Amino acid sequence: MKFSKIPAATITRLSMYSRNLEELLAEDVKVISSEKLAERCGVNSAQIRKDVAYFGEFGVRGVGYYVRDLLFEIKKILGLNKEWNLALVGIGNLGSALIAHENFARQGYRFVAAFDNDPHKIGKKLLSGLLVDRIDDLKKVKARCNIEIGVISTPASKAQEVANRLIEADVRAMLNFAPIQIQVPKGFSVENVDFTVKLDNLAYHLTTEG
Amino acid sequence: MKFSKIPAATITRLSMYSRNLEELLAEDVKVISSEKLAERCGVNSAQIRKDVAYFGEFGVRGVGYYVRDLLFEIKKILGLNKEWNLALVGIGNLGSALIAHENFARQGYRFVAAFDNDPHKIGKKLLSGLLVDRIDDLKKVKARCNIEIGVISTPASKAQEVANRLIEADVRAMLNFAPIQIQVPKGFSVENVDFTVKLDNLAYHLTTEG
Repeated sequence: MKFSKIPAATITRLSMYSRNLEELLAEDVKVISSEKLAERCGVNSAQIRKDVAYFGEFGVRGVGYYVRDLLFEIKKILGLNKEWNLALVGIGNLGSALIAHENFARQGYRFVAAFDNDPHKIGKKLLSGLLVDRIDDLKKVKARCNIEIGVISTPASKAQEVANRLIEADVRAMLNFAPIQIQVPKGFSVENVDFTVKLDNLAYHLTTEG
Repeated sequence: MKFSKIPAATITRLSMYSRNLEELLAEDVKVISSEKLAERCGVNSAQIRKDVAYFGEFGVRGVGYYVRDLLFEIKKILGLNKEWNLALVGIGNLGSALIAHENFARQGYRFVAAFDNDPHKIGKKLLSGLLVDRIDDLKKVKARCNIEIGVISTPASKAQEVANRLIEADVRAMLNFAPIQIQVPKGFSVENVDFTVKLDNLAYHLTTEG
């Protein structure tokens, strides 16, 4: 079943709902009203009902949502009922920090390969136990490790070149930490991580409420 | 003038528009239609017109937006017509990478202080030239450096404790990289950075289009 018309903002909210539902499950909460879930997620309850309605009828009138069922359905929709294999490209400060960051594994994202083009780094064993491969071996390593998503943590000047390598190797999704817009052909996806967008939100609050 | 009723999602989009307008300015584009700007930002043009309309009349019928003027107004609204002073708390792998990351300075965010509680790190000089201060000296350093936003890059287990210190020192905004929900009293703001939300978007595309 295909839902490719769902807006990116909806996907991001579904992702946020799933994080909150996981926490509720860990707190042993069985049922939650759309109002309570909305409050927890910082959206309004009409929004939650609308987002969830894309996929069918999950709510029970007068009761709310069954936490476990809704979480299961959202994860199925997002494709999170499996683990995803990541490859990191660019083993600098940020790359090393990312590969060690506890959030990835916890959410089902697993680094299976790491690449660099610096001869001093190739063959080095990272804290996680991964060996650093040469970027020239991307296709070979991809075939062995089933790389599904490339994580780009090179300087901006190298990011497009790395993206081109990933495209050649048919790695169809990329998470880009370099401060540059990456161009990819149709059928490939890029998401950019820009920490400063969050800071803009804080700056706005400091400005209006300060 | 206060706009505190503007939804967070709108602020995030305004922030994205400002990034794109900056690029347009760098490309020497003087005027852009809402359709072209929308395409570039990956939203629809009605959304842009609606977002911008919160703040007055910026568009010129049949022409579009003056890039420089719209950028100036959005930056004024978001409070980005000044530099903001950041303090980093937690000088591990991620913290060290953040303080060196080129995006912050480029967007007007400047690290003016760095803290840790590890005696081996305190007094150490970071690549940026900043000295690592002891977290116990937060209030003193804040008075000297005018810290406006705290960036938390400790392990999850320490993040709330650090947030409490920032609250005590009246640092009213925090960017949290630790994988945990931080509680703050009214009048304080937290934004959480979770890289895996972006990965969920990619997983969704791989699942539906794969």
